[in-house]
Amino acid sequence: MKFNYKVIFKVLGLLILMNGVFMMTCLPFSYYYGGRDFNALLISGLSAIIIGYLTFALSHRNQSKELKKKDGYLIVTFGWLAMSLFGTLPYMLSGAIPNFTDAFFETISGFTTTGATILSDIESIDKGILFWRSLTQWIGGMGIIVLAVAILPLLGIGGMQLFVAEAPGISPDKLKPRITETAKRLWLIYVMLTVVEMVLLWIGGMDFYDAINHALTTMATGGFSTKNASVAYYTSPFIQYVIIIFMFLAGTNFTVTYFALHGKMLTVFRNEEFRFYCVVTAIVAILVSIGVYQTMGTTLELSIRQALFQVVSIITTTGYVTADYTVWPYEIIVLLFVMMFVGASAGSTAGGVKIVRHLILVKNSVLELKRQLHPSAIIPVRLNGKAIHRDITFNILAFIMIYISIFAFGSIMMAFIGVDFMTSISSVATCLGNIGPGLGDVGPVDHFGNMPELGKWLLSMLMLLGRLELFTVLILFTPYFWRRI
Amino acid sequence: MKFNYKVIFKVLGLLILMNGVFMMTCLPFSYYYGGRDFNALLISGLSAIIIGYLTFALSHRNQSKELKKKDGYLIVTFGWLAMSLFGTLPYMLSGAIPNFTDAFFETISGFTTTGATILSDIESIDKGILFWRSLTQWIGGMGIIVLAVAILPLLGIGGMQLFVAEAPGISPDKLKPRITETAKRLWLIYVMLTVVEMVLLWIGGMDFYDAINHALTTMATGGFSTKNASVAYYTSPFIQYVIIIFMFLAGTNFTVTYFALHGKMLTVFRNEEFRFYCVVTAIVAILVSIGVYQTMGTTLELSIRQALFQVVSIITTTGYVTADYTVWPYEIIVLLFVMMFVGASAGSTAGGVKIVRHLILVKNSVLELKRQLHPSAIIPVRLNGKAIHRDITFNILAFIMIYISIFAFGSIMMAFIGVDFMTSISSVATCLGNIGPGLGDVGPVDHFGNMPELGKWLLSMLMLLGRLELFTVLILFTPYFWRRI
Repeated sequence: MKFNYKVIFKVLGLLILMNGVFMMTCLPFSYYYGGRDFNALLISGLSAIIIGYLTFALSHRNQSKELKKKDGYLIVTFGWLAMSLFGTLPYMLSGAIPNFTDAFFETISGFTTTGATILSDIESIDKGILFWRSLTQWIGGMGIIVLAVAILPLLGIGGMQLFVAEAPGISPDKLKPRITETAKRLWLIYVMLTVVEMVLLWIGGMDFYDAINHALTTMATGGFSTKNASVAYYTSPFIQYVIIIFMFLAGTNFTVTYFALHGKMLTVFRNEEFRFYCVVTAIVAILVSIGVYQTMGTTLELSIRQALFQVVSIITTTGYVTADYTVWPYEIIVLLFVMMFVGASAGSTAGGVKIVRHLILVKNSVLELKRQLHPSAIIPVRLNGKAIHRDITFNILAFIMIYISIFAFGSIMMAFIGVDFMTSISSVATCLGNIGPGLGDVGPVDHFGNMPELGKWLLSMLMLLGRLELFTVLILFTPYFWRRI
Repeated sequence: MKFNYKVIFKVLGLLILMNGVFMMTCLPFSYYYGGRDFNALLISGLSAIIIGYLTFALSHRNQSKELKKKDGYLIVTFGWLAMSLFGTLPYMLSGAIPNFTDAFFETISGFTTTGATILSDIESIDKGILFWRSLTQWIGGMGIIVLAVAILPLLGIGGMQLFVAEAPGISPDKLKPRITETAKRLWLIYVMLTVVEMVLLWIGGMDFYDAINHALTTMATGGFSTKNASVAYYTSPFIQYVIIIFMFLAGTNFTVTYFALHGKMLTVFRNEEFRFYCVVTAIVAILVSIGVYQTMGTTLELSIRQALFQVVSIITTTGYVTADYTVWPYEIIVLLFVMMFVGASAGSTAGGVKIVRHLILVKNSVLELKRQLHPSAIIPVRLNGKAIHRDITFNILAFIMIYISIFAFGSIMMAFIGVDFMTSISSVATCLGNIGPGLGDVGPVDHFGNMPELGKWLLSMLMLLGRLELFTVLILFTPYFWRRI
């Protein structure tokens, strides 16, 4: 099988072009705040637009539009890589992040909505560049919605066909309209929620610029902040509660939000993933609140707020910080570490394993015990009342196992690169899960700038792997993929 | 369905009786070394024999011998618990371990061949009691062989039916003769290897008593030593190499050893699990050797010996120590920690996940990527050239997932009980994997005596769970098990 390289390059060109257009939207901010980074942004934007357009135009002559499954895998992985590569331009040209490794780390951390940063002094960076930084996450979030809703289900990855089975506007016979339609509806929700959050943050006392930036990175479950202290900078409880609510919404399956906005509350509350998501968040938040209240000497409200903020921030893989959780009691640290492997809903912008996979894992584990007693009976896992095909359950188990294997191997590799135990395991967990802060040297009040060069590259690749649901990237490394049939 | 309680009690009675007989074998050692613990051992032994015999005799009147599958689960779990309960008698009556929690921890650590100890000064314990301590592991090892070869395959747990499919002396039509025959042959190997090791250790300069004790706990992959410093006490390279070899043998599938002893070397080297076991051990040992040699300033031979010893000790879940690995470089610590999740061969006395499950996991993960590209093709995992039934692969994946979930939950619970991050995760990993030493406060030069009371109970239960391949115990907590059909 030959790949349809022309179409692949056409799409990549289009993505790079789009990237350039987005860079241009940083110019007003740059201009308003003094414009030191104006030229860098302009040149970056124009370069991306020109190169993107040329790639697009040169490939466009080909009339064949047929895209095969294998082309899809290449487009997704190389699309994210191409975006991240061109995304480094503003950092490097402006001198904000002169080192390529660092710039790439920061950019891919943006496009994968991770939020791990190598910057030690964020506030010293020019405002145009900083807006670009937030924007990479928001663009990444848009990409994830298309990926989750439209592309992954087609590729049959990690049970994704299942989680969007109830997506609105489906007509299974017509493929193209369905994708466009669903993606459009969910993008609209994404944009609307971003605007609403921005307004609320602005009302709450953030200045306009910071409100936009935080709205962009909240909805992407990204977690880049414009402040060194992250959201801890804003002591206003109103602002913190607004962010908690919007992180939670960003981690909710967007199809669930769609139903909620259409008043179909029964559908929402019958959704097992949504219920499990609420229950897990609530239980963990209560446990953490108790721990914080008992040991940190803060008021009850502040304890609950800090606990809730951190739990929601980690479960939704956002990664904002309002308190240094590494000084919290042991059990809270272990609990938060385990939460790094949870992830929020499928069909949201959150990364990680995703809560629906855990739900199926739990159900299947219990049923496997039942199967033990009745070996000849066929006992399928059920989700929202429907039996899940065995192949999908199998695929989900394989997904989780590969996730954990990559975590284990990644931790060993990070340690070999020269990082201590706590930093190794937590940096890998947080990057693979697209969260942001970890423990040890990469804790909530630290940054990734001091990681070894090789470690930054490893973590960059882990962010991409995690974001693209593992299989999309891993499959490129199998002989089956490259074999002609 | 009614349980066949009479038969269950009959078997439990028999086990307790046997336990008492084994206690009696400690008397000569007690007598020879001064006899301070003689009465305690005698009373313990007699109590166990009498209670065991009465339980056996009272249940024996029942003529029904039919054992159902569900009875099997009850016998295995309660058998191990009953042995552990009666096994505490010598410790408590002699005053060696007066506290019941501690005595139970030490006993179940013995019968599960874990080797975690609450004793801070092992050498101060009377020799009769110390021999009992070693013996619990050896008895546990015998139990494991029957369990792995005869019982678990019948219950269909975790793919065990697969790993002994090639067990010698099989005639699938005749169930009973097969079980007895296979178990007998493998027990013979177990006993023979124990004797050979004992002689070798004795030749190497250990005194007779220590040689017996170490031979008993090596072959059980238990790891209880009679010395505070564990095997580090014996600086003789000969002794250490002998122990390395026998740990490795104890972690080899006993059916493989059976074939090797019958000269069928081709069968041995064609066994994929055995090859994977050798390769993993070799690679990790080389990596650790390099790390130790580069940083610890020891000679090359000593570096290799210490590295090989520790790697084999952890992979085979023995838990002996010749060096404090917590001062080794970061990458080694992370590597050894990950190795705690490997475990040696199925059909050996080793605990943990078992290497064949990892092998199937790796194969399945690669094949899952292939399945992604060819969704309609049926692509089974193959082991030793034979296709594995999908149900078994599924069961193995579920097993590993449940193992990791229990590890995560156990770690959180240990942390809530009041133990730090490193100690929580490593104590749970080492107890669930039946290894022995961990990191942090339960490192190789420490002990479990200072763990909180509740923590000791949790860890005791984890040892049992891990040893009985999870499902055997967990199934008792499902409603399906207790439901009448």
